[in-house]
Amino acid sequence: MNVSTRISELQASPIRRLAPYAKEALARGIKVYHLNIGQPDIKTPARVIEAVRNYQEPLIAYGASEGREDLRSALPAYYKKYGVDVQVDEILITTGGSEALHYTFMTLCDSGDEVIIPEPFYTNVASFAHAVGVKLVGVTSRIEDNFALPPLSEFEAKITDRTRAILICSPNNPTGYIYSEEELQALLALCEKHNLFLVVDEVYREFCYDGQRFVSVLSFEEYADRVVCLDSFSKRYSMCGARVGAFVSRNKAVIAGALKLGQARLCPPEIEQIAAHAALGTDDSYLAEVKDEYERRRNTIVKALQEIDGVVVSSPKGAFYLVAELPVDDAERFAIFMLKDFSLNGKTVMVSPCENFYITAGLGKNQVRIAYVLNEADLRSAAECLRAGLDAYRSATRR
Amino acid sequence: MNVSTRISELQASPIRRLAPYAKEALARGIKVYHLNIGQPDIKTPARVIEAVRNYQEPLIAYGASEGREDLRSALPAYYKKYGVDVQVDEILITTGGSEALHYTFMTLCDSGDEVIIPEPFYTNVASFAHAVGVKLVGVTSRIEDNFALPPLSEFEAKITDRTRAILICSPNNPTGYIYSEEELQALLALCEKHNLFLVVDEVYREFCYDGQRFVSVLSFEEYADRVVCLDSFSKRYSMCGARVGAFVSRNKAVIAGALKLGQARLCPPEIEQIAAHAALGTDDSYLAEVKDEYERRRNTIVKALQEIDGVVVSSPKGAFYLVAELPVDDAERFAIFMLKDFSLNGKTVMVSPCENFYITAGLGKNQVRIAYVLNEADLRSAAECLRAGLDAYRSATRR
Repeated sequence: MNVSTRISELQASPIRRLAPYAKEALARGIKVYHLNIGQPDIKTPARVIEAVRNYQEPLIAYGASEGREDLRSALPAYYKKYGVDVQVDEILITTGGSEALHYTFMTLCDSGDEVIIPEPFYTNVASFAHAVGVKLVGVTSRIEDNFALPPLSEFEAKITDRTRAILICSPNNPTGYIYSEEELQALLALCEKHNLFLVVDEVYREFCYDGQRFVSVLSFEEYADRVVCLDSFSKRYSMCGARVGAFVSRNKAVIAGALKLGQARLCPPEIEQIAAHAALGTDDSYLAEVKDEYERRRNTIVKALQEIDGVVVSSPKGAFYLVAELPVDDAERFAIFMLKDFSLNGKTVMVSPCENFYITAGLGKNQVRIAYVLNEADLRSAAECLRAGLDAYRSATRR
Repeated sequence: MNVSTRISELQASPIRRLAPYAKEALARGIKVYHLNIGQPDIKTPARVIEAVRNYQEPLIAYGASEGREDLRSALPAYYKKYGVDVQVDEILITTGGSEALHYTFMTLCDSGDEVIIPEPFYTNVASFAHAVGVKLVGVTSRIEDNFALPPLSEFEAKITDRTRAILICSPNNPTGYIYSEEELQALLALCEKHNLFLVVDEVYREFCYDGQRFVSVLSFEEYADRVVCLDSFSKRYSMCGARVGAFVSRNKAVIAGALKLGQARLCPPEIEQIAAHAALGTDDSYLAEVKDEYERRRNTIVKALQEIDGVVVSSPKGAFYLVAELPVDDAERFAIFMLKDFSLNGKTVMVSPCENFYITAGLGKNQVRIAYVLNEADLRSAAECLRAGLDAYRSATRR
């Protein structure tokens, strides 16, 4: 009894392939610095935990498929801070940003339709697309350009009669790039020209460094009908395990369509929506401090990586990831080596090989994604491991 | 900018079509007895609420994609009570039973594949199937047979080279029927003969009346490889808003396949899994009392409905639904009439028209599903409304 073809063809993420090695390293008593996942170590705002601990209902009943009214109603004021006017009925609460991504592919695309995406990109996007028969078409952004928006002509060259949308993530996972107002404007004009949707994953909105201003795709009123914004409470408030996200669009048909999917699954998690509602009341100083912390970490890890011979780092401006080029032939082999055959003073590092972050064959083979979600001291120590590991790997592979 | 064809074709459930009328009735000050939804009024076990209120983590981090280890590990002992031996690695925690249903269609079927299902069935099954391109094929169960398993020959007649599974729900939503050991055995033998999966939604397992013993599909060791069981904490512990369910199979490829989807969406809601874990420690007396309460309600509503002229009721044995035939031409029109044009002493009733619970055109047009999730006094009062409403409807439509 076999599974469906669509499932057997679905690739497990590289991290899943590495997980057994990480487990073995732990079993050998090795401390593993996890630079591989976007799990922040920052505490959830106390008021979020308090809201959970203060849960009062005697009966955890089904909620609205659209999401809790109190939570939805509180969101327009939050978006307002970014100069964006959205109405309550333009917002659906989803079970994490993941569900918002699933709704995007389902609502905008039929099986066989295409979505253009700058590569490298967050690998799970490929899983969601593949699962529902959507073909992702990559346009390559390059480390030497700091992963900026590739020329529009490269997007245009990939548009076919099956193209339905362009999907970007800003600030970007995995590159840390933040798309500028001009880049968004240009993409929107391109979408208008070819009658496409522009979908922007903005879950890292709060994490913009070097004073760079974040521009939301929702602020372009004239293109409102062709815009979908994906959002999540996970990273912003360090509450990834509480599966609360949002699907936002001013296109009424798109919202009504996504809601049909929402109705089939009944409702998002109720208690965690209460937690998310509390999160919205978090003092701005929390987000400012968290941003400052990540900015310091970024400075630390970028500097430490730049000091390693043969490593190329882009200049990430936001989120808490960067893509680095390593002086290795095969980053996945190197990542396994680090877990399986290497340690420095009982420590090693786990990184994400980037090959699966690209659609174009051969790209990213010497790249890794690094999530700087550890404190500065640990990041420095992790970079030290990486430097020593690269030396050891070169010696080992030279033999 | 239009939505995809698969979304525009997706039917909103009948309840959604009725919702505006219910809202208007409320606005006019009418009390509406909601017999239309399976939202129990029973309190969640106190220990579940306490577990939420006792949440201790400073950081709501991503959990395992398989579900929390403590929760999964506690489930085999629960299934053991039903004489079923399942291992931890045969269980995936899902975001509600809904996600388990989505995983079923994705994991077992490609787009264009077929699943045979006795009709009437829970309408959202059709939404999940349609969304991912799976064709549901109905085999009609009949009110005059008390909605028992239709003859196997009728299933066999519907099997094609695209058929991948038979899907049943036991105890059944909407009919209340409980499939016997012999019926399950016969279905499994049929599945073996034609190399199909048997999927059983067992979320109402605890709700079996008249002393009828529940037999889980997981107890048939010899067919383990072709069985998927869908489960949920929602109804059992009256915690529908905490989205925690389970996808259970002894088929390793099926579990591994479903887990790939689970990994893409990262993890189920963490806090609510803690609540679900606490639920498993609920004293058996809670479930026994809840069952007794529903059994009394069933007796009350069945008797009250039987006393209404022209109403035909089956003899539901489990879950908390029944399907009744009304002396009307169009149950949806009648349901709207009850909300829009009728009240008895300021009260009315909302029921689910059954037409959408069938695939075969024309069936169910005079049937409604009634969820007996109100206390006995309210059920009697609701039945009184229904009787008076039927009289009024007949007078109104005769004119």
